[in-house]
Amino acid sequence: MQFHSLDDIRTFCRDLPGGNTGAAEAATLRQQVLTKPPGSLGRLEELAIWLARWQGRELPRLDCVTIAVFAGNHGVADRGVSAYPQAVTAQMVANFENGGAAINQIARLAGAELKVVPIELDRPTRDFTQAAAMDADAFLGAIDIGYHTVPPDGDLLVVGEMGIANTTAAATLCAALLGGGAVHWAGRGTGVDGAGLARKRAAIDAALEHHRAISGDPLKVAAAMGGRELAAIAGAVLAARRHKIPVLLDGFVATAAIVPLMRLNAGILEHCRAGHVSAESGHRALLDELGLDPLLDLGMRLGEASGAGVAILLLRAALACHAGMATFSEAGVSGKAG
Amino acid sequence: MQFHSLDDIRTFCRDLPGGNTGAAEAATLRQQVLTKPPGSLGRLEELAIWLARWQGRELPRLDCVTIAVFAGNHGVADRGVSAYPQAVTAQMVANFENGGAAINQIARLAGAELKVVPIELDRPTRDFTQAAAMDADAFLGAIDIGYHTVPPDGDLLVVGEMGIANTTAAATLCAALLGGGAVHWAGRGTGVDGAGLARKRAAIDAALEHHRAISGDPLKVAAAMGGRELAAIAGAVLAARRHKIPVLLDGFVATAAIVPLMRLNAGILEHCRAGHVSAESGHRALLDELGLDPLLDLGMRLGEASGAGVAILLLRAALACHAGMATFSEAGVSGKAG
Repeated sequence: MQFHSLDDIRTFCRDLPGGNTGAAEAATLRQQVLTKPPGSLGRLEELAIWLARWQGRELPRLDCVTIAVFAGNHGVADRGVSAYPQAVTAQMVANFENGGAAINQIARLAGAELKVVPIELDRPTRDFTQAAAMDADAFLGAIDIGYHTVPPDGDLLVVGEMGIANTTAAATLCAALLGGGAVHWAGRGTGVDGAGLARKRAAIDAALEHHRAISGDPLKVAAAMGGRELAAIAGAVLAARRHKIPVLLDGFVATAAIVPLMRLNAGILEHCRAGHVSAESGHRALLDELGLDPLLDLGMRLGEASGAGVAILLLRAALACHAGMATFSEAGVSGKAG
Repeated sequence: MQFHSLDDIRTFCRDLPGGNTGAAEAATLRQQVLTKPPGSLGRLEELAIWLARWQGRELPRLDCVTIAVFAGNHGVADRGVSAYPQAVTAQMVANFENGGAAINQIARLAGAELKVVPIELDRPTRDFTQAAAMDADAFLGAIDIGYHTVPPDGDLLVVGEMGIANTTAAATLCAALLGGGAVHWAGRGTGVDGAGLARKRAAIDAALEHHRAISGDPLKVAAAMGGRELAAIAGAVLAARRHKIPVLLDGFVATAAIVPLMRLNAGILEHCRAGHVSAESGHRALLDELGLDPLLDLGMRLGEASGAGVAILLLRAALACHAGMATFSEAGVSGKAG
């Protein structure tokens, strides 16, 4: 196990590894001499430089791209907070394994390896309106699973999730760690109706009340009000930082999963980009809170890394231009007048 | 020649060919049974259905994708409205032909054929602050070139442009046909400075004044204040409509190029989508005016079809999911509860 205690995580987050400034500077200089007005490729330029910084290469590559989809089940599902029965988590994992889900198609198109990681689906976390969802050992175990899902020599990590009722856990984490209350963070998830949304808000309020004593400790909050797949995402993001691998976050749940780390050290966001903003109502608010500008806004709200998976294509476009374009002098194109 | 007179274009636009409602309905039904909550793929669902409607196939394809980049030169460039000398138009066309530009890299990544169509670069249009940029024959000739660039059996057309000073022409067309004045539509193009921007606004105002008598006739406005590459884009969009080929528009200039057609019949927009919104200041305003919701917002402002070229990747993602995903019954996944 990489982190034997919550303190090990706190220690790691206190002094996060940095990116490669020299590679970022070389990539920035390269962008300035390519045959286009400076800055005219917009975020494609920024993405190429960001990849250079974390990969430590002027010319980054996307040969080893991993999409990690973690799945978990949630005791709070018993409170009627989702439009779908809990059995759908395992059914969708089987669908991932059989190649029938959206993320299978997107991963193939984007040239990424899909790793599907179900975590103890037959043992849902405890209903966190009544008790801690996980004890410290269970939480660290899930962190560890996420950590070891990441190939140390990877070029890019994309994190996503599947778990009936997990937007309730995500909203609860956000409310506990960022304030704002249940109404601000709870959305319709996979499409819950008005009564279900009311139950979801009530569950969040109950959880916040029940766990009020630990609200100042981000990791204890993550264990008590999160879920195994959210913890695994946090673990994977920590591994990516250790190995200096850039990360694309998927939707509301995947982003909420790193809020506990962000509360320990906001610098955790530096190797992360938001692949997209989902239609789940809390996601835009969360991205604004974290200062993350999403790459895509397509009204998606599927989870399973689907939005960030599509965003891999934008990184490929950024690198195609970065590596393949001629410079002004190579092409004999005049620079700016005057 | 397809259109022998401006009246031929008016006649075509009066009764535009429609899409295939049956194919669109079949695609819509298919989206409803794929293993995801209904609507959760957001715009990827809408795009698959839109492609189905115009291709007339429940399962659309993107085997024959053409990116057409039209290039022209502009007499108004002599007024100092651009950051670059006019020679850059031909230099960039050579760069396209040598494979060194951004669009070459993007076209390869997106699996599209790039057609670069320079139109009489050694004969710039007349300075439209003083005279009509083109007479009717020159305008129809450029329309015709655009029209015949489109393969009748294509699956998708992407239109873009290159032409020093052409954001001045685009802004002038918008001001003439949509109102709002020079300040509303003139932006910094490739990066003109404050004095250049003032010259650009003055040129637009002068053109509007000079051609006030024809402001009620969209096609005469397009000839008098547009440019050859803008006319060619309009011709290509007309051909795509004739052959029922869906179109992705690139940035401000490519979108402005179809405003004259839109003023004849707003239905021209039905087979078109905005590939992106550029950082050129008038583009967002123009898309809002046309009711087009861009697929990407990456701060790009390069032209040469680069933004819409990247958006091809989103269409591929939409179709990968549409064609490849399992249905609920195939996958044995439970539908929505209750």
